[in-house]
Amino acid sequence: MRATPALGPEAAAPAGDGPLAWLARHETVVLARLNEFLAIPSVSTRAEHRADVARCAAWLAAELRRIGLTAECLATPGHPVVLAEWRGAPRDVPTVLIYGHYDVQPPEPLGPWASPPFTGTVRDGRLYARGAADDKGQLWVHVAALEACLAARGALPVNVVMLVEGEEEVGSPSLAGVVAAERARLACDYIVISDTVMLSPEVPNILGSMRGLAYFELTARSAATDLHSGQYGGVVANAAAGLARAVASLVDPGGRVAIPGFYDDVREPSPARREELARFPFEEERFASDSGIDVLIGEEGYTALERLWLRPTCEVNGIFGGYIGEGAKTVIPSAAAAKVSFRLVPDQTPERVERLLLTHLASLALPGVRIDLRRLSGSLPWRTRGNTAGLAAARRALRTAFAGDPVGGGTGGTIPIVPELARSFDAEILLIGFGLPGENAHAPNEWLDLETFRRGARAVVALYEELGSRTGRES
Amino acid sequence: MRATPALGPEAAAPAGDGPLAWLARHETVVLARLNEFLAIPSVSTRAEHRADVARCAAWLAAELRRIGLTAECLATPGHPVVLAEWRGAPRDVPTVLIYGHYDVQPPEPLGPWASPPFTGTVRDGRLYARGAADDKGQLWVHVAALEACLAARGALPVNVVMLVEGEEEVGSPSLAGVVAAERARLACDYIVISDTVMLSPEVPNILGSMRGLAYFELTARSAATDLHSGQYGGVVANAAAGLARAVASLVDPGGRVAIPGFYDDVREPSPARREELARFPFEEERFASDSGIDVLIGEEGYTALERLWLRPTCEVNGIFGGYIGEGAKTVIPSAAAAKVSFRLVPDQTPERVERLLLTHLASLALPGVRIDLRRLSGSLPWRTRGNTAGLAAARRALRTAFAGDPVGGGTGGTIPIVPELARSFDAEILLIGFGLPGENAHAPNEWLDLETFRRGARAVVALYEELGSRTGRES
Repeated sequence: MRATPALGPEAAAPAGDGPLAWLARHETVVLARLNEFLAIPSVSTRAEHRADVARCAAWLAAELRRIGLTAECLATPGHPVVLAEWRGAPRDVPTVLIYGHYDVQPPEPLGPWASPPFTGTVRDGRLYARGAADDKGQLWVHVAALEACLAARGALPVNVVMLVEGEEEVGSPSLAGVVAAERARLACDYIVISDTVMLSPEVPNILGSMRGLAYFELTARSAATDLHSGQYGGVVANAAAGLARAVASLVDPGGRVAIPGFYDDVREPSPARREELARFPFEEERFASDSGIDVLIGEEGYTALERLWLRPTCEVNGIFGGYIGEGAKTVIPSAAAAKVSFRLVPDQTPERVERLLLTHLASLALPGVRIDLRRLSGSLPWRTRGNTAGLAAARRALRTAFAGDPVGGGTGGTIPIVPELARSFDAEILLIGFGLPGENAHAPNEWLDLETFRRGARAVVALYEELGSRTGRES
Repeated sequence: MRATPALGPEAAAPAGDGPLAWLARHETVVLARLNEFLAIPSVSTRAEHRADVARCAAWLAAELRRIGLTAECLATPGHPVVLAEWRGAPRDVPTVLIYGHYDVQPPEPLGPWASPPFTGTVRDGRLYARGAADDKGQLWVHVAALEACLAARGALPVNVVMLVEGEEEVGSPSLAGVVAAERARLACDYIVISDTVMLSPEVPNILGSMRGLAYFELTARSAATDLHSGQYGGVVANAAAGLARAVASLVDPGGRVAIPGFYDDVREPSPARREELARFPFEEERFASDSGIDVLIGEEGYTALERLWLRPTCEVNGIFGGYIGEGAKTVIPSAAAAKVSFRLVPDQTPERVERLLLTHLASLALPGVRIDLRRLSGSLPWRTRGNTAGLAAARRALRTAFAGDPVGGGTGGTIPIVPELARSFDAEILLIGFGLPGENAHAPNEWLDLETFRRGARAVVALYEELGSRTGRES
């Protein structure tokens, strides 16, 4: 274990028989089981991985049964949902719903990976693998904490229901149905989710907001077939050029979305919130260098944190058309496609963004090129209720393991089920991530910091204890 | 054989023992040999086809020896050149250099092919295969005519040297060196090339001009690695978006190149040439429907033929970046690339276009995105000397086989060696193509019309005879 004097309170001495001592003594086996989890290529977006995704759900359910929960795989129109429970605490003790996802993003491009994406590999105190941070490794913080409590004490301080889905990376199309069907079993007082990043290795982030997502595929078509650029160049529309023009029209060079009406539904951040963010211990230069970025860019008039958390964006996630092999091919592409997504903030909705995008595309002058739009996923943005008892408990718990005072920041990412859970249950949602900036989620060489994993598991034990001790104190 | 009463003069009766009778009697075996030629995947742009390209050259040299020429494969820094000769005519009879190429474009995308690209397949009087039109099938018009003359008469009406390269589709990088080294053997009075299209099935086209080519690869880079579009969207440059912006900036929506200075070197077509083209029997609607195009687009103020032959263009030949698999991946691409090419007209040069493009790209506002440029090939435009004796002979020869009066049109395509041959030899260049509009050169389902092939071979026999009979008549 590396020395990390500056990172926070040292763990309770591993002597003794409490959960923290159990965690310190069982780290090797806990990480070995995480490596088994990471080794299953549960890529939800790819049809050829369907069996792997199902195998991953079954493996996780068996593992949760092994540590002492009841667990089952619920079939859905898509990938299975793992639902696990522990109801051994008195009925007046709060119930905590732990949400996570066992599916992962595709590992491609494979070239840049320094070690195989589905073989967990430790280098310099980091565990590298697809899903190490998003979200298998962060889910494992909870599994380790639950096992530590159950192994050391034979009981948990709270009642627990775990909801772990296999479609988060494709927009959670089946989960709302499961939530509706299993309303009774999922009823809870707190919803705890670890699928986000801390502000820095020292400073935890209990989210105050989360952006939504609207993801589209644009397809451009011109002629019936690709044509020779010499025999037809000058009279035939070029689908790839038309698509490039359409894509370029979506954002201005400064990073502001250029679709008319796009900002109409965007709530300006309040001065108080902007001041709060400005006080956060966040260094733009460190964030950039941690992430391998030369220069931070974006919309003028907003800080980096504001642009990341409080402002909407438009990104080209992929573009493809014509000949992309070695050398030259003199062809006019007759078809081309782009994946384009928007991160949304209150009060935007995926439906309204789709309508605005359709209107904008129809308004473009693209002679001979037709552009079709297909929505691949959509999620609403989310915002916290504000200061609550659960938030105070989470702050206390995190302070036991980390040096910095937890902040109530945001995330630029999207967990599609969060707005759905907020709508379905009268429960407080605590989004407490143990990822770190630069973790390469969705990119090659994704990693989880092992010291943050250790501290996270200790903090989560403390969180369960804090929430369990709140019986009767809430009104 | 289908009935084609409207296409032109009927062939001389197959009775008798002249070359035309030989052609009529041997069509099956001539096409079977062409099919062997087409079956070799001589894709010059792909390293993995290097052995196929070499095999194709060896096969062609053997075939030319079989019909009665001497032939050898000349090694080059790239793919071999086939050089074949027949010197049996008297020394005062003209020497004709026949140029062609045995390499082909990649067959991709494979999906749209109705029959395998490297298996010649006849449907509705057309022979479908990669290279059927460009250029193996058109070269075969000459091979068939040569064999017919040699088989029927034991001699050719002219001295012949054939120069068949394997790098035409990659810009002929090695051929200029061969031309310089083999100057003496290649010395000639006429250069005949069949690698272009007729105006229509009835109307042959003896080219008066040919566009040049400048082909580039643009590579955009932003961050060190792909990044999560939630965690980084709003602060990180998107290489795919930057590339789309750069590509879109090259051409205006109407099809006019938007690079400053691009038109400075473009010679406006003369009023006389424009009037000549306007009289050509060319129907834009028929051209469009033959080519599977709904609508012809392009630069305002010019007819379709002017835009195709006399005006320069810019095309995106391919574009690629980020995630292009099934479903959604929320990633910000750190790299993207496009293939972009320009067709050039007098007095443009690839070198000057490269300089203008570099200056233009450097002038774009693309915060956080760097664009690198690499030139893949470059060829000068070409223009005929005007009315000559060879042209008159070619017109007479074509009239023996086709119904329409030959026109002196142009081509929008590029045969890179033509300007080099024009510079190297004091010979008249006759560009007489037997392809047809809609032949899908460089695209899936490339085809050669078999009736045009038959008429072409008869016309070429007549052309050799016309040129051979010109001894002493030229001054």
